[in-house]
Amino acid sequence: MTITTTQLKISDAEHLGRCDQLLSHIQAEKLNGVILYDRDYILYYTGFSFVPTERPIAFVMSAKGERAMFVPRLEVEHAKANALIDRVDNYLEYPDNPHPMMILAEMIKEMGLTGRIGGDNDGYPWILGYRGPLLSEVADVTVCAVRAFIEDRMAIKSEAELNCLRESCKWGNIAHMLLQQYTVVGASETEVAQRASNEATLAMYNAIGPIYRAYGGLTGSGAFAGYRGQIGRNASIPHSLANNIRFQAGDVLVTGASAPVWGYFSELERTMFLGKPSDDQRRFFDHMVTLQDTALGAMEPGKPCSEVDKEVRAYFEKHELMPYWRHHSGHTIGLRYHEGPYLDRYDTTEMQPGMVFTVEPGLYSPTLGGFRHSDTAVITENGIEMMTYYPRDIDSLTLPI
Amino acid sequence: MTITTTQLKISDAEHLGRCDQLLSHIQAEKLNGVILYDRDYILYYTGFSFVPTERPIAFVMSAKGERAMFVPRLEVEHAKANALIDRVDNYLEYPDNPHPMMILAEMIKEMGLTGRIGGDNDGYPWILGYRGPLLSEVADVTVCAVRAFIEDRMAIKSEAELNCLRESCKWGNIAHMLLQQYTVVGASETEVAQRASNEATLAMYNAIGPIYRAYGGLTGSGAFAGYRGQIGRNASIPHSLANNIRFQAGDVLVTGASAPVWGYFSELERTMFLGKPSDDQRRFFDHMVTLQDTALGAMEPGKPCSEVDKEVRAYFEKHELMPYWRHHSGHTIGLRYHEGPYLDRYDTTEMQPGMVFTVEPGLYSPTLGGFRHSDTAVITENGIEMMTYYPRDIDSLTLPI
Repeated sequence: MTITTTQLKISDAEHLGRCDQLLSHIQAEKLNGVILYDRDYILYYTGFSFVPTERPIAFVMSAKGERAMFVPRLEVEHAKANALIDRVDNYLEYPDNPHPMMILAEMIKEMGLTGRIGGDNDGYPWILGYRGPLLSEVADVTVCAVRAFIEDRMAIKSEAELNCLRESCKWGNIAHMLLQQYTVVGASETEVAQRASNEATLAMYNAIGPIYRAYGGLTGSGAFAGYRGQIGRNASIPHSLANNIRFQAGDVLVTGASAPVWGYFSELERTMFLGKPSDDQRRFFDHMVTLQDTALGAMEPGKPCSEVDKEVRAYFEKHELMPYWRHHSGHTIGLRYHEGPYLDRYDTTEMQPGMVFTVEPGLYSPTLGGFRHSDTAVITENGIEMMTYYPRDIDSLTLPI
Repeated sequence: MTITTTQLKISDAEHLGRCDQLLSHIQAEKLNGVILYDRDYILYYTGFSFVPTERPIAFVMSAKGERAMFVPRLEVEHAKANALIDRVDNYLEYPDNPHPMMILAEMIKEMGLTGRIGGDNDGYPWILGYRGPLLSEVADVTVCAVRAFIEDRMAIKSEAELNCLRESCKWGNIAHMLLQQYTVVGASETEVAQRASNEATLAMYNAIGPIYRAYGGLTGSGAFAGYRGQIGRNASIPHSLANNIRFQAGDVLVTGASAPVWGYFSELERTMFLGKPSDDQRRFFDHMVTLQDTALGAMEPGKPCSEVDKEVRAYFEKHELMPYWRHHSGHTIGLRYHEGPYLDRYDTTEMQPGMVFTVEPGLYSPTLGGFRHSDTAVITENGIEMMTYYPRDIDSLTLPI
């Protein structure tokens, strides 16, 4: 008899499967191994989560399938705890003498990475004050881009990834419910967002228990809901920055809520009214919901992403709404809060089962405000599964004053 | 009579002065202009703050000093509101047809950027699903690296920047004071960190008023203080990830506190004890404080950074503490929470007035815990100014149980 425990965490077997896919790709491309520095790529292939700094970290896989981590002394214990890694090499500190890239060059030579190898970058990117040579300047390698292959793989979510995303939707939903509940005239957006986010985070920590890991990098360590300054007139600037506004009767509000679950982010956004909307605002809200329904109705496996956006734009044009258009209909989402492909008239990628999209056509009027719902939906074998489930209708989203 | 208002925000004149320095550099290097994509560099030169996505944004300056922003439709109003920018060009959306890089290529051609130009990257980096050509593939340019020049300039803070950093220290201090006050046996680190961070943030918003801008990107929008999981035994893993631990008597705690102030971050970290430390823990604490004093005492203008770290390492060696060493003595800080130069034995950069360092030698024992204070200090004409001012002594940092 075997007793297993329900796990949200991506399993070692799944990480190994991903590594095998990458290995097949580099073998097919006749590359003598691969080096990745990108934090999200390393998390995707190894489950190793870290916050990138000026201290280079790399994941290396040889053409024979040997998997290694290259880390500063600081991260050795952390890297060695990862069961999937055959070898951990380290340098002492950045800067170091010799430069860490020289030590990495030595390591990859031992692993047989010479000539044409795959990589996401030629050397460690210059972040947070890091300076260093290209890898190709210190090692006998030519780095061939593998980003497109990796991005294509990451775009198709497995059942385990979908479960992380569903869990993310649940805690984003609670955070949003609390946000709506606490939003009253005179309160400040900061207080309301703090209270909703904190309570949802504690509920999530208590519900999932001490096994919970955010793996959200700098993007977040708990559930959150807030306004990002998209309040009243500011709502017409889609990505405006928050500045502690107090709610007034008549405000049109655009919200955002999510939660990182082992690195995976969902997206939930709603347009709400503080008090009864005007007729014009109601008309814009109705158009927005119809636009979202149009997009959702156009999503199905086998069709290009562009078709969805084209149907949305056709509605914009038919109703003379293009002056209020600011952006395409959505993007995919997962370990990053934005990913490709996009629901965009120029993105001809075919929608496939496992692709998770945000669906969020928006209307922005300098006088009426911003109008946007965003829901997260995954393409299934024969249609879509709505992963977010917060009410979308105007009555549910009109707050008492 | 002229009435001016006290301003923390970096002035237009200062941004213009920075642009002029960059312009002199590209002229001296015989470069026909410069293109920057890095969010922090664009903030540094223009005051324009944004969250980078798959939609390319660039700051372009011609060799004649014409300054332009290249943005998606979404950001046009935001970019046009910036008084320093002579020209705002936009594409509609990413993806687009033609590709945004083609539109950027057209724009820079009109501005006279051909041949050798400066840049922080050859084309927009592949983040959040963005894919695109190198700029040199679609425009008649060769991109020459200007990162090192920019990093060198950013390392020397002006009086206005120091004021932002001093303000950041103040709100980090309040957040830390509250964190210490709320840390009691049985409480969870998350609850305590939330409460301290929220109250400090509201105090900051109310004190500075609606003019306050965090400009912290994804790194933060308010004051914060917390533990990042460095509690009890976990304290020995310097950058371990938080996981909602409850405080127990006997815990050794390593804290962190800061606040973004118009983009600038300070750093305040303390080692605290929940209840009376053991003799061994006291010994490690005393060594750590002496190590920090050693570093602070070694800092002065005109001396290489390496000297500071060498004196710290000499103390480690003299007292046979190298088994507990994990990282160098500190880093500079500003618009990024880590910057170069570093207080590292291999960084021979000369310390100069205006350089702001974190000073944070640490000791890490698997059995005793982690021991690290971090203070923020600026090099002055004749020594250093301590910018953080939280108590450092063991009595002030021992919490009642």
